[in-house]
Amino acid sequence: MKIKPLADRVLVLPAPAEEKVGGIIIPDTAKEKPQRGKVVAVGGGTKDDPMVLKENDNVLYGKYSGTELECEGEKFLMMRQSDVLAVVED
Amino acid sequence: MKIKPLADRVLVLPAPAEEKVGGIIIPDTAKEKPQRGKVVAVGGGTKDDPMVLKENDNVLYGKYSGTELECEGEKFLMMRQSDVLAVVED
Amino acid sequence: MKIKPLADRVLVLPAPAEEKVGGIIIPDTAKEKPQRGKVVAVGGGTKDDPMVLKENDNVLYGKYSGTELECEGEKFLMMRQSDVLAVVED
Amino acid sequence: MKIKPLADRVLVLPAPAEEKVGGIIIPDTAKEKPQRGKVVAVGGGTKDDPMVLKENDNVLYGKYSGTELECEGEKFLMMRQSDVLAVVED
Amino acid sequence: MKIKPLADRVLVLPAPAEEKVGGIIIPDTAKEKPQRGKVVAVGGGTKDDPMVLKENDNVLYGKYSGTELECEGEKFLMMRQSDVLAVVED
Amino acid sequence: MKIKPLADRVLVLPAPAEEKVGGIIIPDTAKEKPQRGKVVAVGGGTKDDPMVLKENDNVLYGKYSGTELECEGEKFLMMRQSDVLAVVED
Amino acid sequence: MKIKPLADRVLVLPAPAEEKVGGIIIPDTAKEKPQRGKVVAVGGGTKDDPMVLKENDNVLYGKYSGTELECEGEKFLMMRQSDVLAVVED
Repeated sequence: MKIKPLADRVLVLPAPAEEKVGGIIIPDTAKEKPQRGKVVAVGGGTKDDPMVLKENDNVLYGKYSGTELECEGEKFLMMRQSDVLAVVED
Repeated sequence: MKIKPLADRVLVLPAPAEEKVGGIIIPDTAKEKPQRGKVVAVGGGTKDDPMVLKENDNVLYGKYSGTELECEGEKFLMMRQSDVLAVVED
Repeated sequence: MKIKPLADRVLVLPAPAEEKVGGIIIPDTAKEKPQRGKVVAVGGGTKDDPMVLKENDNVLYGKYSGTELECEGEKFLMMRQSDVLAVVED
Repeated sequence: MKIKPLADRVLVLPAPAEEKVGGIIIPDTAKEKPQRGKVVAVGGGTKDDPMVLKENDNVLYGKYSGTELECEGEKFLMMRQSDVLAVVED
Repeated sequence: MKIKPLADRVLVLPAPAEEKVGGIIIPDTAKEKPQRGKVVAVGGGTKDDPMVLKENDNVLYGKYSGTELECEGEKFLMMRQSDVLAVVED
Repeated sequence: MKIKPLADRVLVLPAPAEEKVGGIIIPDTAKEKPQRGKVVAVGGGTKDDPMVLKENDNVLYGKYSGTELECEGEKFLMMRQSDVLAVVED
Repeated sequence: MKIKPLADRVLVLPAPAEEKVGGIIIPDTAKEKPQRGKVVAVGGGTKDDPMVLKENDNVLYGKYSGTELECEGEKFLMMRQSDVLAVVED
């Protein structure tokens, strides 16, 4: 990955909307729908928020989290580690 | 549980609305009704908020706390430990 | 008490409105009327706010403090220690 | 005094409006009129704000500071030490 | 002075509007006009803001800083040290 | 560079809008489009935010980050290090 | 200089609008135009923000930074060190 997130940021490759990994479905009727994705790059962390996420973690994050950017034809989301709700284990 | 909450978050399985464990009823007329549920997964905590909740704790939490998500047919709530009001002992 | 408050929270049994303990009356015309009650359970405190309240303390608290909940037929208020204004000694 | 303020709070007996101690008059035209009173009880202080006020201090405080309460026929104000502007020496 | 400011407050005697000490004039057209005055009493300071001002310092402060009060026929302003912009040396 | 940023600020030379370095394209439809540029000067950092960026880093930053200034015919942006999302490696 | 700034403040003599030192021009069309000036007095700094600016530094600062004051016929701006964007070296 050519993009190195700064501080406590992570770069996430969002999962396709129809994907269903490990039986987890995000209900359409949820008041605030979390999204799934894979961490592809992590920053160096900060003193207050050292990194616990690592590359290849499958994560859940809020629907409106992060900033979109596109690299070599794929769309990514740059967000802070604190915007990530959970790691999903397969 | 395949979902590992991050930082000071807990994953809660809400109790069915009609459940009445240990004689505790949440009054319908309460200005801000707390809800009951069971903790099914806890994060690693933060420096400012180390985890005191553990799996299987029965908890009370505010009505609008947390983010809904569904895993293998069951609906859960992801919330911060600080959103949990109390542990209920049976 | 089956309910264990979390962190710096206390569970308070509000005094009946007509009660008059030790000659203290809350005037009807006060701009923000404090209420009286008895502490029935305390949390473990936090690093920033260790518990100074203990069970059976008679306390004064702001009119809109806390979250109502009902347990075995009695109504309680769950609030933070910092919402308690004073201890009343009999 | 039967009322023990919590944390960094003080209980103040407001001076009668017409009182003039030591020649200090609060001008009617002041944009934010301070009031005078006597400290009758002090809390234990907090780590960030240890108590410097003590019982019997004559104090000046902002017009809208504190919460009114009545005890044995007298009206008091419960406020935080940081709401007190100054001590007046006679 | 009979008034002892609390914490990081200072009591300031505002200079008459027409005064011109040391050639400093506050322009009428300034977007936010600083005012001049003399410190007549200082508080004990706080851990975060120890006192650097002392009695008899000539100071500049923002137009809307402080709370007016009157003592023995003179009008004063009670303000926080952090509201004082500068000391003026004669 | 004649301009020395203060504290945790960096001076960035924005990339021309049409530039496409390393295959990274910022999609036009992104809800909040990051921009690309090159760091030309860095401040000394602060205790809370020591500098990790250095001169010649290619960076991504939010569309509305920074303050424009012009020096010797070129337009630059002065922004805080925390406004920089990521370093792009070629 | 007769004016001694307090804490982390600096006193700045704004450069005439037409001045062009070292080839730096502030473009008229900038969304938020920085201004140039020379530091004529500095405060003692604070624990969180010790002074890095010194007298005679040429500085850039935001257009709406500081408070105007006039001393011996010249107009100055009093501002916090954190409002200064950069030092310009000649």
